[in-house]
Amino acid sequence: MIPNLPEPNDTALELTRMLDELATYSDGSDSGVTRLLYSASWLQAQRFLARRMAESGLATRFDPVGNLYGRLPGRHPDAPVVLTGSHVDTVRSAGKYDGAYGIVSGMAAVSYLKRTYGDPIRPIEVVSFAEEEGSRFPIAYWGSGNATGLYDWRRDGEDLLDEEGVSLREAMRASGFGGESQGESRRSDLAAFVELHIEQGMVLERMDKRIGIVETIVGQRRYAIGFEGAANHAGTTPMTMRQDALAGAAEAVVKLEALAAQWGEPLVATVGKIEASPNTPNVIPGNAEFTVDIRHADEWKLNAFCELAMSEIERIALRRRLRHKITPWLSTKPVPMSPALTRSAERICQELVLPYRRMVSGAGHDAQLLPPLCQAAMIFVPSKAGISHSPNEYTAPDLLADGVRVLTAMLYELAYEERTT
Amino acid sequence: MIPNLPEPNDTALELTRMLDELATYSDGSDSGVTRLLYSASWLQAQRFLARRMAESGLATRFDPVGNLYGRLPGRHPDAPVVLTGSHVDTVRSAGKYDGAYGIVSGMAAVSYLKRTYGDPIRPIEVVSFAEEEGSRFPIAYWGSGNATGLYDWRRDGEDLLDEEGVSLREAMRASGFGGESQGESRRSDLAAFVELHIEQGMVLERMDKRIGIVETIVGQRRYAIGFEGAANHAGTTPMTMRQDALAGAAEAVVKLEALAAQWGEPLVATVGKIEASPNTPNVIPGNAEFTVDIRHADEWKLNAFCELAMSEIERIALRRRLRHKITPWLSTKPVPMSPALTRSAERICQELVLPYRRMVSGAGHDAQLLPPLCQAAMIFVPSKAGISHSPNEYTAPDLLADGVRVLTAMLYELAYEERTT
Repeated sequence: MIPNLPEPNDTALELTRMLDELATYSDGSDSGVTRLLYSASWLQAQRFLARRMAESGLATRFDPVGNLYGRLPGRHPDAPVVLTGSHVDTVRSAGKYDGAYGIVSGMAAVSYLKRTYGDPIRPIEVVSFAEEEGSRFPIAYWGSGNATGLYDWRRDGEDLLDEEGVSLREAMRASGFGGESQGESRRSDLAAFVELHIEQGMVLERMDKRIGIVETIVGQRRYAIGFEGAANHAGTTPMTMRQDALAGAAEAVVKLEALAAQWGEPLVATVGKIEASPNTPNVIPGNAEFTVDIRHADEWKLNAFCELAMSEIERIALRRRLRHKITPWLSTKPVPMSPALTRSAERICQELVLPYRRMVSGAGHDAQLLPPLCQAAMIFVPSKAGISHSPNEYTAPDLLADGVRVLTAMLYELAYEERTT
Repeated sequence: MIPNLPEPNDTALELTRMLDELATYSDGSDSGVTRLLYSASWLQAQRFLARRMAESGLATRFDPVGNLYGRLPGRHPDAPVVLTGSHVDTVRSAGKYDGAYGIVSGMAAVSYLKRTYGDPIRPIEVVSFAEEEGSRFPIAYWGSGNATGLYDWRRDGEDLLDEEGVSLREAMRASGFGGESQGESRRSDLAAFVELHIEQGMVLERMDKRIGIVETIVGQRRYAIGFEGAANHAGTTPMTMRQDALAGAAEAVVKLEALAAQWGEPLVATVGKIEASPNTPNVIPGNAEFTVDIRHADEWKLNAFCELAMSEIERIALRRRLRHKITPWLSTKPVPMSPALTRSAERICQELVLPYRRMVSGAGHDAQLLPPLCQAAMIFVPSKAGISHSPNEYTAPDLLADGVRVLTAMLYELAYEERTT
């Protein structure tokens, strides 16, 4: 049953004000937001959020890695916790929605629920995870990873260095975290996690949907491919005597694109990076290196496509007499979201008459870390032109407000409704 | 009629000694030869060659740009001059054959002819052209270009800067050239030019030929191509919604290669350089820039292929909704060598029982500058594995000696034989 929900215009105004204010905590010199883990602006942003959480009646605490929680205890404070939120860190020169939207939405939703319905039956917490992007240190999901046990701040972080050679552990301590007296990061008391996020793609906009309900966060595989032929004179080497590494790489790019189109959604395959050598107009490239990024929501199909793609790349190399090297360097499995929560979200959209779409998330999110601990759900709102990780990232205020309405209804069901079980 | 020719073993020894000694004049810190125009090593090399020319009885002079000539006056000193030689400069970290071989071969041939047959009827000169490679300043053929009137050292060179910001004119004057009292560079007294050079390709070696007789030096066209699509998230952008600039560039590379193979020799088409942007594994490239180098010995076919190739590139861009920009930045016409000299060279090879091949030169050479002034010929010897512009450049001494025998016979016919005309 859908409760009374926040008035869209009020919510839109509240969200845009909060997002604008949060965006002022930035180390960037350009128009984008740059808020790297444990930087001065990052710490200011977390303190700002803690003040706002406290003002709306939440009990705040930081965990040892700097994850910020704002808690509404509820009438059964020992019951498993309903958690919502996202990450506070950004890439360099980011927009103001990625991560931030999920935190301020959670705060708005919980504040509304408390004002309207009083204390929940089960505790609700809003989290501002310390880190998700992997932009400062060579590690991503540092926040949710510590909360879920993927990482352990006591063990990890000493040998992870930023560009200035500062280790993650040093930076964490310099920010006032990583202290033995700060308790545990890992949670073992969670019932559910709901993350609201911008889509960072153009599917919802193109299909004229206002809400995306994530069924699965895709699994990813990344490879570095090297082709080696022979660098020769572009004028004196007939076409039949060439071992052109770039032509081989180009054939692989075209083949990969065609295979991906043939397999269809939700499979995506991307060559994002290429380097030819010697990379001179009048020399046949003797070496070419390129990356392959493959994603799918189905683990078996992801595996099958990767096997097929690598066999085609190998075949191209052999036919062209190129030496080849295939190096896998990233592999994550698809993570299904909770079917029960997904159905709830769908029912809520139907009752609110919000055009929605069940979809996969092609990007990774904090929500993919939670399923070992609790059920997890992920809700998207459209991103204008699919632009993200850019100062041009934008979602209209009325769409932001729709997301908050769905989130509010989901949190109400999870924390306020009586359960038979 | 073939005269007595130098004994192959003696010639091989003489050439390898001279090439080794010339290679010591190098600014390179590695194993390669680096002798850039007007550098200290360049000046020492020219002075060394002048001493050796003088020792073998040639009258030496430098022209105002530093081209070195060694002259055997002949019995009719005012008759048009038979010229042979090549360029003394090198690319960075070069081998010791490119250019150098043509100079020392000319010196060996003329010295042998003088010792064996005395003074020629018509004057013979050996030239060590100042520059051909375009490695220090953004200009190539500075030596032969001034000798043939393509360039004029009084007019050109002030705004051509090297990497340190030194102008060609300053560098020329610092080397003691560019003086008004040094006469003219431009020649108007030439009868013929014969250039002996390493092939810099693998055709002769693969076909087991010892001599290449160049019929035409190819024309060249170079283009810079830019594709612009949209940089988007590699995970959240379905294949059908992409404007992948790199995939477009890859399709162009594959198409160009296929077209070139279809047209067949002597056409060659090369994409030597490619840059994708942002060039990050998990972002669909929004921009891709690549170069196209197309060469053919027939001007009409060169034009036709370039038109076809650019139309295909345009078609690829349009079909993929990529903005495209095609910038032509180099265009030279094919230059036929003298049919009469080519026939002479062929007859000489037949009489000497040297396996030869009529061929095109896919690389540019000084010889292509001469035809407006006189008949020109170009003779190749094999390059091991086609390697050039590298310390690994190599041609076996017996092959070097074969080239000198053909050159000696050609110079004999041009300068020693009575002419009815």
